[in-house]
Amino acid sequence: MELREQIIGAVRDCAEIIITAHDIEAGIEEKDGAANFVTKYDKKVQDELFKRLKSILPEAHLVGEEESEHDNVDLGYAFIVDPIDGTTNFIKDYKMSAISVGLLKDGKPYIGVVYNPYLKEMFSAEAGKGAWLNGDAIQVSNKELSEGLVLFGTSPYNRQLADVTFDYMRKLYDVSLDVRRSGSAALDLCSIAAGRAEVYFEMILSPWDFAAGALIVTEAGGVVSTLDREELCYDKKCSMLAAGKCAYAQVPGISYKNSP
Amino acid sequence: MELREQIIGAVRDCAEIIITAHDIEAGIEEKDGAANFVTKYDKKVQDELFKRLKSILPEAHLVGEEESEHDNVDLGYAFIVDPIDGTTNFIKDYKMSAISVGLLKDGKPYIGVVYNPYLKEMFSAEAGKGAWLNGDAIQVSNKELSEGLVLFGTSPYNRQLADVTFDYMRKLYDVSLDVRRSGSAALDLCSIAAGRAEVYFEMILSPWDFAAGALIVTEAGGVVSTLDREELCYDKKCSMLAAGKCAYAQVPGISYKNSP
Repeated sequence: MELREQIIGAVRDCAEIIITAHDIEAGIEEKDGAANFVTKYDKKVQDELFKRLKSILPEAHLVGEEESEHDNVDLGYAFIVDPIDGTTNFIKDYKMSAISVGLLKDGKPYIGVVYNPYLKEMFSAEAGKGAWLNGDAIQVSNKELSEGLVLFGTSPYNRQLADVTFDYMRKLYDVSLDVRRSGSAALDLCSIAAGRAEVYFEMILSPWDFAAGALIVTEAGGVVSTLDREELCYDKKCSMLAAGKCAYAQVPGISYKNSP
Repeated sequence: MELREQIIGAVRDCAEIIITAHDIEAGIEEKDGAANFVTKYDKKVQDELFKRLKSILPEAHLVGEEESEHDNVDLGYAFIVDPIDGTTNFIKDYKMSAISVGLLKDGKPYIGVVYNPYLKEMFSAEAGKGAWLNGDAIQVSNKELSEGLVLFGTSPYNRQLADVTFDYMRKLYDVSLDVRRSGSAALDLCSIAAGRAEVYFEMILSPWDFAAGALIVTEAGGVVSTLDREELCYDKKCSMLAAGKCAYAQVPGISYKNSP
């Protein structure tokens, strides 16, 4: 079985932990940032995923959200994993969370898998080969920004970014159809990839938020970059702008440097 | 079979039209407001629903979003129907839309049914009897605003409300966990009712947006009012504030009069 299919199988199996979760509010911890929660289920999904991914590709480094030390990802294979992207949604039972697994090869995105277990939507991509939703090829929207939906993240762990986030969101609202805020960066990227929305931005994300989703967007024909139109970094935090080609060119500029 | 169950059956059947829709972008019309779209499916769902509701309760008035003349709803029974709440999401395949059917008796909410066909979630309520999700009783959250999620609508057909909307949203973001914007008022109300979020507000809504959802919130133990804390009107547009009891009391005031 090809590698992408094996990763999809592991992700689908681990999603059972999310779907059958109960008593989620027991044992929640708060990490360094405000509103940056971690549940016992984040750890459980990550442990199980790491075990499965290790058996699929034993030589790969494993980088996950729920650990403090991170391996170097520039050489060889590295899995970058977010066991539950959209943890606040998960805690609230808001049903907008995903498992995200990106595989880098020598520091570049090679395979991406994002699964929304509530809608049973499995998004995936392989560098140079395309992007899929449950086996069907997907493509970004070619609509103009004025006919587009704008997805935004609030970077809630970094409240000092609220002014710049909401000012920019308002600027985009005024030139688009409307805005949406889901609370899951991985799913927002997949919405762009599937042509369900035209633009997504967030002032700061970690590599596990977008290692899979960014590849799914580019393989679906879209564009991803930081907000100041630089290449994404997979070894540190950066900002995110993802869009269809037409809308990407129309998004107003923002002078924003990518560091927290 | 009791009335609520009969309405649920009609709504579930009509949702097939939404789930099996194709070529949605063909035949879209734009109504009076900017971004106020109507598809052939809105009309198809409404026609089918009206037929079914008429046979359930022949004496009821039928009021739907997709018609220009509206009956008086103060006397006897009146169904207030939104065939597809979240039309822009429906057009974009964003999978966040619902059928909403409210039944008034002498101008007061009597039964409410809201169905999300993507997640197969049937929300319902009957005055004085409670609120349910797929047969299980639901309750609003009793969390404080500081531990709460705030849902907001942008009233995109009334762009002159953008300043007041985004200013108020920002005020609430600063005292809560985070904000969400789904694009469906009916589903936002159901999220409040199910305790998945703590506060929902929007500067202007039509009765078909909330005739069902508002009852589902109050029967789940929550509070609904206009933003200036007046009773909702079911015969004209008004603003909306829906919340759990604890968060409702903590939401900062806004001097906002309810007319467009």
